[in-house]
Amino acid sequence: MTTMAAFTDICQWSSFHCQPSLMVPRITCTGNWNHHGLSSSFSWKLFCPESASFKFSSSRRLVARRSYVPKKGIQVVSPNIGSQTLTIEFLNAWDDEYGGVIVDPESLPSSANAFASTLKASISNWKLKGKKGIWLKITLEQADLVPIAIQEGFLYHHAEPGYVILTYWIPNEPCMLPSSPSHQIGIAAFVINDKREILVVQEKCPCSCPGVWKLPTGYIDKSEEIFSGAIREVKEETGVDTIFLEMVAFRHAHLVAFEKSDLQFVCLLKPLSLEITVDEKEIQDAKWTTLDELVQQPFYQEDQMSKRVIEICMEAYENHYNGFIAHQLISKFDGKQSYLYYKETMTE
Amino acid sequence: MTTMAAFTDICQWSSFHCQPSLMVPRITCTGNWNHHGLSSSFSWKLFCPESASFKFSSSRRLVARRSYVPKKGIQVVSPNIGSQTLTIEFLNAWDDEYGGVIVDPESLPSSANAFASTLKASISNWKLKGKKGIWLKITLEQADLVPIAIQEGFLYHHAEPGYVILTYWIPNEPCMLPSSPSHQIGIAAFVINDKREILVVQEKCPCSCPGVWKLPTGYIDKSEEIFSGAIREVKEETGVDTIFLEMVAFRHAHLVAFEKSDLQFVCLLKPLSLEITVDEKEIQDAKWTTLDELVQQPFYQEDQMSKRVIEICMEAYENHYNGFIAHQLISKFDGKQSYLYYKETMTE
Repeated sequence: MTTMAAFTDICQWSSFHCQPSLMVPRITCTGNWNHHGLSSSFSWKLFCPESASFKFSSSRRLVARRSYVPKKGIQVVSPNIGSQTLTIEFLNAWDDEYGGVIVDPESLPSSANAFASTLKASISNWKLKGKKGIWLKITLEQADLVPIAIQEGFLYHHAEPGYVILTYWIPNEPCMLPSSPSHQIGIAAFVINDKREILVVQEKCPCSCPGVWKLPTGYIDKSEEIFSGAIREVKEETGVDTIFLEMVAFRHAHLVAFEKSDLQFVCLLKPLSLEITVDEKEIQDAKWTTLDELVQQPFYQEDQMSKRVIEICMEAYENHYNGFIAHQLISKFDGKQSYLYYKETMTE
Repeated sequence: MTTMAAFTDICQWSSFHCQPSLMVPRITCTGNWNHHGLSSSFSWKLFCPESASFKFSSSRRLVARRSYVPKKGIQVVSPNIGSQTLTIEFLNAWDDEYGGVIVDPESLPSSANAFASTLKASISNWKLKGKKGIWLKITLEQADLVPIAIQEGFLYHHAEPGYVILTYWIPNEPCMLPSSPSHQIGIAAFVINDKREILVVQEKCPCSCPGVWKLPTGYIDKSEEIFSGAIREVKEETGVDTIFLEMVAFRHAHLVAFEKSDLQFVCLLKPLSLEITVDEKEIQDAKWTTLDELVQQPFYQEDQMSKRVIEICMEAYENHYNGFIAHQLISKFDGKQSYLYYKETMTE
């Protein structure tokens, strides 16, 4: 349920704290659950005032009633106006835990006109109900709806190849919705064998360090652990199998690609094999080299950052340094296990 | 120069390594530079084949010529076809360093029809030239162009409130473009005074830990350093001034808000003031408390993660533990300073 996962529990976002200032959509129900089942129950909760009972039909048609008379899946409002019937159409949606609303992405009208009118009516309805942040997911196939949402005052929040998420902040106060993800996470792998030889690569990089021998590096995959990403990158680029020993340092750089930031974690790895198989797509060449050959390259002599990183890695290898190790722990906030990286302590 | 910053130097993305597998837009020119000046020089570079010289006019009109005759800002192609004149219209764009193309976001046609035809022609032209990744930035005001780009095969890449970035991968091989940013970066602040009292808060959080006294936490701002974010959050939530001592641990959690991950860094801070001023927008209450009062809360007794974090912080405070300190270093890749976090070593 990609759709639902996109609106998962904020508490997971901060496994040993909560974030009152960040109003991220959250479904009050957890675990595996049926989306449409939930969406209507949430819609019920969302649109149910004290004064009347409301119900949804499968066609997202909402009608309030004093006396409920089923009518081919459509419920009809009959206030105290004799035989007159009032029917209002809103987008299907459910509450989040922050006084906001999550529009059901699987039930948006396919026609631009229908979407425009329903969105307008829904926004008025949410305003009347004092809702705060509105979350709207629009898939690639629904791209015609994007300009309409923007027209109504939605802003982009973030995007993945197949969809864009838009938000609308109703209160007349600064927006409390969280910003989009800000960082990429990379690794640099220091792999040293029993002969004190270090695994280095030459990259097929058009923009920098041509011919420089350097540590294997890369970015972790979605939901990948840092130590797993380091092991995978080394295997992919050089064919060498490794195990993770410790994380010895990390660099925080800003205003990098897309005005975003990145964190790169330097990992000390122990090789389990020595034979090198170069990944020709990414790597020009790879080899085992001595510390002197590595650091005596002119590039390293001129690069304060790389020099310091190699010094720290050598100290870690020679046990003069203790970096962070990954410890899997359960958090009460989400009942899940995640990794806490820290140095082994005296109590362990 | 938001527009240009969005396409800044990939090398910054990996200050002591390069990323051949990631084809992020990069302007070959660096430093402060005039956008339009650059865009035309890049357009020149982009569209200039061996066989003929090309030039742009201010109206994004591209024409190839054998003999250059200026014509009110419009250059005209006159191949070997006598007096016949050929005029082709393409989107203004420039090369990135990865064989890709960055469309000039400030020169998109305002009319949807003009954009549709020019985009189609440009894609054919880029294909002919063997280009790889195409980067297209569309602002809120240009939202009508989004469905057209999607129609032509573009996918969403990422978004900020005011714009969405779309990409198009031309080669008939797996896309080598980087994914959108994947992580949010948070902090948890352990502030302990000379009486061994710890600064704790109760959050106005609708979703979890009601009434629980916990460490001040928050997310760092765009381009903010981790240690600065910790100091700022403590000041904002409690009014207490602090200095950063060390980063003692961090937690890596996955599939959190928006299917993204987060890293939360636990920072040991020394208070410079003791008086508490609660930020009523975010915080229910704040106080100085004893270690026993903090950890004896039922919530902490049941939360493996929080318990371990407090133990590590106390060991760090009692100097039985050395976490990471931020060291500002220059990288040769971007000539910029960024922070490398690591433990003080014997050589320092």
